[in-house]
Order: sequence, then C-alpha cells, then structure tokens
Amino acid sequence: MSAGWFRRRFLPGGPGGPLPAAPRSPRPRASPVPYRRPRFLRGSASGPAAPDGPRRPDARPVRCPARGRALPWNAGYAEIINAEKSEFNEDQAACGKLSIRRCEFGPEEDQEWLTLCPEEFLTGHYWALFDGHGGPAAAILAANTLHSCLRRQLEAIGEGMVATPPPMHLSGRCVCPSDPQFVEEKGIRTEDLVIGALENAFQECDEVIRRELEASGQVGGCTALVAVSLKGKLYVANAGDSRAILVRRDEVQPLSSEFTPETERQRIQQLAFVYPELLADEFTRLEFPRRLKGDDLGQKVLFRDYYMSGWSYKCVEKSDLKYPLIHGQGRQARLLGTLAVSRGLGDHQLRVLDTNIHLKPFLLSVPQVTVLDLDQLELQEEDVVVMATDGLWDVLSNEQVAQLVRSFLPGNREDPHRFSELAKMLIHSTQAKDGSPTGEEQVSYDDVSVFVIPLYSQSQGSSGH
Amino acid sequence: MSAGWFRRRFLPGGPGGPLPAAPRSPRPRASPVPYRRPRFLRGSASGPAAPDGPRRPDARPVRCPARGRALPWNAGYAEIINAEKSEFNEDQAACGKLSIRRCEFGPEEDQEWLTLCPEEFLTGHYWALFDGHGGPAAAILAANTLHSCLRRQLEAIGEGMVATPPPMHLSGRCVCPSDPQFVEEKGIRTEDLVIGALENAFQECDEVIRRELEASGQVGGCTALVAVSLKGKLYVANAGDSRAILVRRDEVQPLSSEFTPETERQRIQQLAFVYPELLADEFTRLEFPRRLKGDDLGQKVLFRDYYMSGWSYKCVEKSDLKYPLIHGQGRQARLLGTLAVSRGLGDHQLRVLDTNIHLKPFLLSVPQVTVLDLDQLELQEEDVVVMATDGLWDVLSNEQVAQLVRSFLPGNREDPHRFSELAKMLIHSTQAKDGSPTGEEQVSYDDVSVFVIPLYSQSQGSSGH
Repeated sequence: MSAGWFRRRFLPGGPGGPLPAAPRSPRPRASPVPYRRPRFLRGSASGPAAPDGPRRPDARPVRCPARGRALPWNAGYAEIINAEKSEFNEDQAACGKLSIRRCEFGPEEDQEWLTLCPEEFLTGHYWALFDGHGGPAAAILAANTLHSCLRRQLEAIGEGMVATPPPMHLSGRCVCPSDPQFVEEKGIRTEDLVIGALENAFQECDEVIRRELEASGQVGGCTALVAVSLKGKLYVANAGDSRAILVRRDEVQPLSSEFTPETERQRIQQLAFVYPELLADEFTRLEFPRRLKGDDLGQKVLFRDYYMSGWSYKCVEKSDLKYPLIHGQGRQARLLGTLAVSRGLGDHQLRVLDTNIHLKPFLLSVPQVTVLDLDQLELQEEDVVVMATDGLWDVLSNEQVAQLVRSFLPGNREDPHRFSELAKMLIHSTQAKDGSPTGEEQVSYDDVSVFVIPLYSQSQGSSGH
Repeated sequence: MSAGWFRRRFLPGGPGGPLPAAPRSPRPRASPVPYRRPRFLRGSASGPAAPDGPRRPDARPVRCPARGRALPWNAGYAEIINAEKSEFNEDQAACGKLSIRRCEFGPEEDQEWLTLCPEEFLTGHYWALFDGHGGPAAAILAANTLHSCLRRQLEAIGEGMVATPPPMHLSGRCVCPSDPQFVEEKGIRTEDLVIGALENAFQECDEVIRRELEASGQVGGCTALVAVSLKGKLYVANAGDSRAILVRRDEVQPLSSEFTPETERQRIQQLAFVYPELLADEFTRLEFPRRLKGDDLGQKVLFRDYYMSGWSYKCVEKSDLKYPLIHGQGRQARLLGTLAVSRGLGDHQLRVLDTNIHLKPFLLSVPQVTVLDLDQLELQEEDVVVMATDGLWDVLSNEQVAQLVRSFLPGNREDPHRFSELAKMLIHSTQAKDGSPTGEEQVSYDDVSVFVIPLYSQSQGSSGH
C-alpha cells in the first residue's frame, strides 16, 4: 500500500508490536455448553493466559484517530477499548488510502510492473475492523493483509474499473471492448467488479491466514468488516457480527447484516443435510426450542429443518437427542457448540473439543457487500457512517447510536477532532454503569472498536480517479 | 374440503372435465436454445398437439367468479384466459373455504376422526393459481390436491394453532403446555406453524403429483401461488413466477418474490458445485455474459461463480465452453437450457433433451411464505390483493396494475361484481394491441389468470375461529 497507509495493532497499552510470537498449540474448545459472553468458548487454552472471565473496570480506552497527516480529511476516526478478556486485544483495525495502479501485465508480473508502471490511476479509501477470537493472531494478520489482497484484486480488473460498462474481455495489455451488448444485457456495472474484488480479496486473505497460522503453529479466527470508498461509492463488506450504519439527520440505514449461526441457520443446516458426515454422528442438524431430553422421546415437539422458515411438530426419535448443530438463542447461539459467528477469516484448525469435527466447512469467508451511492445522496455535513464491532451493538441499538451522533455533532461544530471525540463518546457509552448518555444502564464486557467516517468531506473531496 | 369448496379446471370452452386421460410418453425438451415465449422449450412432444406457436386473437376470456353462494363475501374474483398455446389450458385455479377440524387422534386415524370429531374449529379461505408447463396434468393435480394437503397439515398442528405461544409438546390427545419459556425465547408464533404447514403442504402435494403422474404415465410441472386467510392474517406462499401484490390507496406492496434461474442463481450454482455429477460434464456451472466460443479460449472474460454476488474476470479454459447451467437473461433465462422457473410442483421425470440430466434436483417445491397482518392494517374498502400468473406481470408492472385498480374501483362502487369486472379488465389489459387502459401497447401471448381479493370485507367478516 502506498504512503499514507495506516494500520494499528491494538495491543494492551498502545499500538504497535509484533505478531504474538510464541507458537501455540491448537486451542481446544470447551465442551459444547453455551457460555455467557465471549464469542469463543474457553477451553484448555494454551498461549497467552486469559484472565478469569471478563474484567472491565480498569480497562483503559485507547484513543486512536487515524494518522491525520496522511489522511487529511477522510481518515475516519477510530476509538478502541480493550476489555482485557485476553492479554492481546482481539480487536484490530486498519485504515488508509487505497492506491490502485495501472496493471498492464497482469498481477503475475507484479515485480516488473512496479518498476514500469508506477502511476496510480484510481484512489480510494479503506477502513477495516477485525474482531478476533481464539487469540489475536488472525485479526492481526487480517489487518496486515486484507488491504493488499484488495488492492491486488482491484488492480487485476484494470481498465474494467474505468470503462462503462466493463468490457467482457480483458486480456493482457489489450482491452477489447468486445460484446458490450452482452454486458449491457446482463446489466453488469463497474460496482459489480468492485463487489467481486471484495469477495475475492476476503477469500485470498483467508487463505493467507491459513498458511501463516499453519506455518507458525498459531490458531484463531476473526470477523471482518470493511468499508471502501471508491469512485463516489461506499462499499461495505461484512463477514461476521460487526456492523456499519449510515446516520443522517432523518435516517438510519444499516449498511451490513450480521452473520451468526441463527441468521444463517438454513445454509448451515443444509450443508449438514448434504454432508451428514460433517457432524460425525455427534450432532443433529434439526432445530428444537431447547435441547431435548430422554423424557421427550416419542413426544411431538416443535422443530425446524433446513428447508423450513416456519415451524412444525415431529415425533422425537433417539437421534434427535444429540446436541444440536445450532444451539441457544440470540447472543448465546453457538455453531457446533463452539462459535458465535458463521462468517469470518481464519479458524481453519478449529475443531469441536475432543472431536475431529471441523468448524470451517460451516464457517464462510465470503462477505456480503452493500453499496451506497454517495453521489446520489444529498450529503449534509453531519452525515456519518459508524462502523463498530459487536461490543458496541450488544448494548446500543442503531437508533440509540444515531441519537448519540445527532446529539453530539451539532454542539461540537468547531472542534476539529469532533468525529474522533464522537467515536470516544460512543465507546464510553458502552461502559456507563449509570448516567449513560442514553439514560439507560448499559455495559459491554467485550472489546469495542468504533470508526466514525464523515461522508460530507468524503464526497466533496473524493476525486474518484 | 368442506362444502363450499370450489375448484375449476380451465379447459378450453369452460370449466369441468377430467384429467387428460391419454397416457403420454415423457416430453423430451428441445435442444437447449432459448425460445421466445413459452415457459417450456417445445420438443418433439407427444400428447395433445400444441398449435404452431402462440395464437391469441380468438382466445376467449372465460369469466370465473368464485361460487358466490358458498363464499358470500370473501370469494375473490378470478378471470382466466387461455392463450391456446396447448389444447388444455395450463393455468389452473382453485379457491374455497378452508375448514380446519379438531384432530384429536392424529392424522393417521383420519377415518375414525371424521366420524368422531366432526366439529370445525378454525375457518380460513384459500386461493391458488397453478401455471402448468409440459401439459396441464400437474397443474390440475395441484388444483385438486394442494388444499387437502394444507388442511391435513394444519389439522396435524391441532391446538398449536390456537395456543399462544404454541406449545413445545403436542402429543396425542394431551396438549402439554410444557417449556413455554423455550418457545417464547425462540419467539415461535402461531404464524410460524402456518408457514411450516404451507411449506410441508407444498412438499406433500409435490409427492402426490410425482406418484400420480408416474402411475398414469403423464408428465409436466406447474408453478404454485397460494393465498390463505386465517385468524386475521393473510399468508402468501409462492413457488414459481406468479406474483401477488397488495394494492391500497397510497401503497403497492409485493407479497411474493419470483423464483427463476436468475433469482436463484447462487443456490443452483452451489448445488452444481456440491454435486458436479448432476451436470454430467455437459454444462458449466459458471455464469458468463454470453455463451463462450472457441475464440474466447485463453482470454480473460467476465464470470461469476456460486459464492459471488459481484463479477470478476477469469482466463477461459476449455471446460468453460460448455453450455451454461443457467443461460440467457430476463425472461429468456433457462435452467439447464430447459426451464424458466426454479421452483414449482411436479417435473420429477423432466430431463434435458437426449440426456439423463434431471431438472428436479435444481427445482425446489418449497415455497417462500410472506405474512400480511390484516388486523394491523387500517383497511379501506378498495384495498385488494391481486394474484396473477406471469402472463399478467410480463406486460404490466406492479404500479401499472395498481393504477388500473385505483382507476377502476372508485367509479364502480355500486356494481356488486366490480371485483370480478376488475379481474376481467386486468386480463383484457394484457390483450390490448392499442388503446389499452395504460395507454401503452402491451400484449401477452401466455395464459393469464388473475384473482382479485377484496380485503376490507375479508377483515370485517373474518371471525378467525
């Protein structure tokens, strides 16, 4: 990434520091019994010792405005807090300028191209939050890597990024504008290429994490929430349970959906239907209102299978008494008794405790991408995107965050750091045992990371290319 | 179904008549080349001879108000037109009162129960449209069967339909209100049971059609769009490309989504990824802007795989030159070069012409169900649901239909047949070569069926139970 790139490793006490160096054996997960807050069930973990359950009172908020020098107007403002669930902060963040260079020879001649074609032909901006579990390793790798994967994917598209519609053919130096009628008939737009690039970048990054963690004997995974501003559009790619929302004067618009065992129930159950061997006779793919007991045998109980949105009754058989593939509800829901998210990066080694059952086939790295057309919005000075890890959304609703944004910004128009202060205030709202800005008691015991991205200057200042 | 049940077989010249009797050999489909209008590619079909392509001028509209005697206020009004694509009309419809009886002994003792428990404890209303392909057999069977499947499924739920929340256990005579906390935590509502019943009824009906067509040596399939009014809610279940919309004075709300190879691309591609043998080396699961040719070999062209919402470029290999799993766009899009819908009933025998590649694994019978809470709407006298087969929606948008509804009803308040006349007018709008009500030229060459369901009297008159 070009100059201006900024990445923070949020280690306790401040940024910086290397990847956790000590090789760690795979962390077995605890027995599949839902456990209160952490995304990960704690097992007989080796590696950095986790404190005995969440602690908060002495956790120090770490204020981290993005490096203002390199990113004068579009930095976004981050605020991160370490809940001290573990020695290393499992939340990681990255943001910076995204410089897409003309790639005339295809990515395989990267080295030559760096010399021959230094020119930058498209500039975007990138913000990313990674919420790690099973240690910070995957989140740190993702924060170090994903933007490079994305840059590579965007550069591979080359002229497809600037032609409208993108050409059907793209070969070597020659950009053949052949068959535009087919591209037009399919309605393929430049933004579809960016969406494809984000999807591919997540998968490429996932593969890098697999390789790196395997090589260093480390484990872990992370959620990933990425916002990219490019050519007048804001792309939000999400894999996990972080969230981005657009807050305007009269509108709150979700820019991402959460991927959890509950929201992806049908996909997960269907995979188990197609490949029953993935459950190794230890789990049932059916959903019941609670885990069934011996007493339920022969009774008709409520259930759902993969093809059902609704519920029905079935007569309980012995196999229904197995542990459910997805168990628990709301924030307690777990995939294979182990994981609270259904998409993310890493976790290739993750297995159910004391079994050979892998989580990964159920866990996808593909993000869902939403596109916000900034040029179509009549942006106001106080329109912002708020990106945050689940620590924020566990205690504040979209509407509550929007209210905090709207009550904070107008009174601080003169403050050059007001977006940064807003991020800080949002974090502090999750720590307030009483006297919180929303007047309600709300405490998050999780790591919390927040980006506040002002859109007005974004849209004003963004040349696109 | 109880007295008051009404079903029409829309054979040319009027209702009535048996199932087409002549056993027909499976209809091989034409080579996978998109063909203009019919849902089905015409092959060397045996069975009732189809005329040479669509004809319209002399097609007679058949006016079919539901039997008013048995359904005094809630009948809905149907209008059907046979495009004479085939000897038998492939559009079929059914509507009537849905009488759910107390089922104390479970469905397996149906006969005893009919004698012992004649009481009806829940009354609903049912409307259904079936758009057949490959002959009318499946559509006729569906119109004869689906309501019975649904009644059976609803009766099997028994007291689960009236308790709030539905009990977790339902066993024999005894309704055990055990574990209500789990049902409440999961947020399971009575409407989820009705959704489940609709999902199961579609699958049960699909199995009946498979059995009956196999036994009689017939073939074919159909789409299914069903509306059920029950306990103050309207359920709309859809499998195929028919559509239902709610039209109110200031609002048009889609009540269904279409299921076509394009709308279900990712599901279909993923199935081919999981079971590549389903394509028998004849098709490629990848999507390209057009079918690739030898000239494209080695070039980078736009493509999408199952995990992608966006587009990317790939270098064309020989296997990419195969016929695409989903080919064509819009109304020309075909699944395996053969079928224009991706959900429906029947088609168990349907194969790609001259191959052993079956359509059915890709074709689902599960409907998507949407729920409209009538009690929550402040219904006006002219609020209606319009249900129609694709023949209508091919030439009229939701907004155009809404405009026609709004321009027709207020001027005909005194006409007791105005909803029936509206259905007729909507059909005629699809036949107007010029001077159409919308002022635009629009002609449908397909069979067209329309239900207009007035909601005001529905909601006023519906006792629920």
